[in-house]
Amino acid sequence: MAFDPSTLCFDDRGLMPAIAQEEGTGLVLMMAWMNAEAVARTLETGRVTYWSRSRQAFWVKGETSGHVQTLVDLRVDCDRDCLLLIVRQEGPACHTNRQSCFYTAVRDGSEVELMRPVA
Amino acid sequence: MAFDPSTLCFDDRGLMPAIAQEEGTGLVLMMAWMNAEAVARTLETGRVTYWSRSRQAFWVKGETSGHVQTLVDLRVDCDRDCLLLIVRQEGPACHTNRQSCFYTAVRDGSEVELMRPVA
Repeated sequence: MAFDPSTLCFDDRGLMPAIAQEEGTGLVLMMAWMNAEAVARTLETGRVTYWSRSRQAFWVKGETSGHVQTLVDLRVDCDRDCLLLIVRQEGPACHTNRQSCFYTAVRDGSEVELMRPVA
Repeated sequence: MAFDPSTLCFDDRGLMPAIAQEEGTGLVLMMAWMNAEAVARTLETGRVTYWSRSRQAFWVKGETSGHVQTLVDLRVDCDRDCLLLIVRQEGPACHTNRQSCFYTAVRDGSEVELMRPVA
């Protein structure tokens, strides 16, 4: 079946959540947003490209930091309203310089830091 | 640091995306939404509880299907606007009876089914 980005279910802002997971390790790195054009650009270039809600602009991941995400596989969920990106991650994915954005756990009512920024 | 759910950044509907990942396998199972009360109930009961946008009601995962998610670890991202739930999944996570909702890949412009419904 040919893939038609217009059959995806974007929200009223024209966006959907995109989850980046590292190939091999399975580490969930981050979640950001994509519009239809970001999906198309990611598939076309193989460079993961989000839509920045704060900057209202395309965000080619790693363009300034060098922490590029290369697309390995793009997956759509059953409701066609969420994406899972399997990626090769160059350097840390998080802007805090941690490997993943999900570095804080909630355990026994307290926040626990699971990873430190990489040197 | 004590965890205070009111410090999480919910959207204008009072919701945030919650990604469920299977313990051990690292399989990303699904993405659904939580409000502050769903987060509190999930932590309190250990049974993953989402907010159903279509039904506008709490959704204790598996309550009708039996495909329960037991919380192993709850993680918050750097922006405090997305959750990662490490879970033990009973049966298939997807309502289509597949192990994960992300069973469709986009490869060379076509949709490819990666997994079949379990028997």
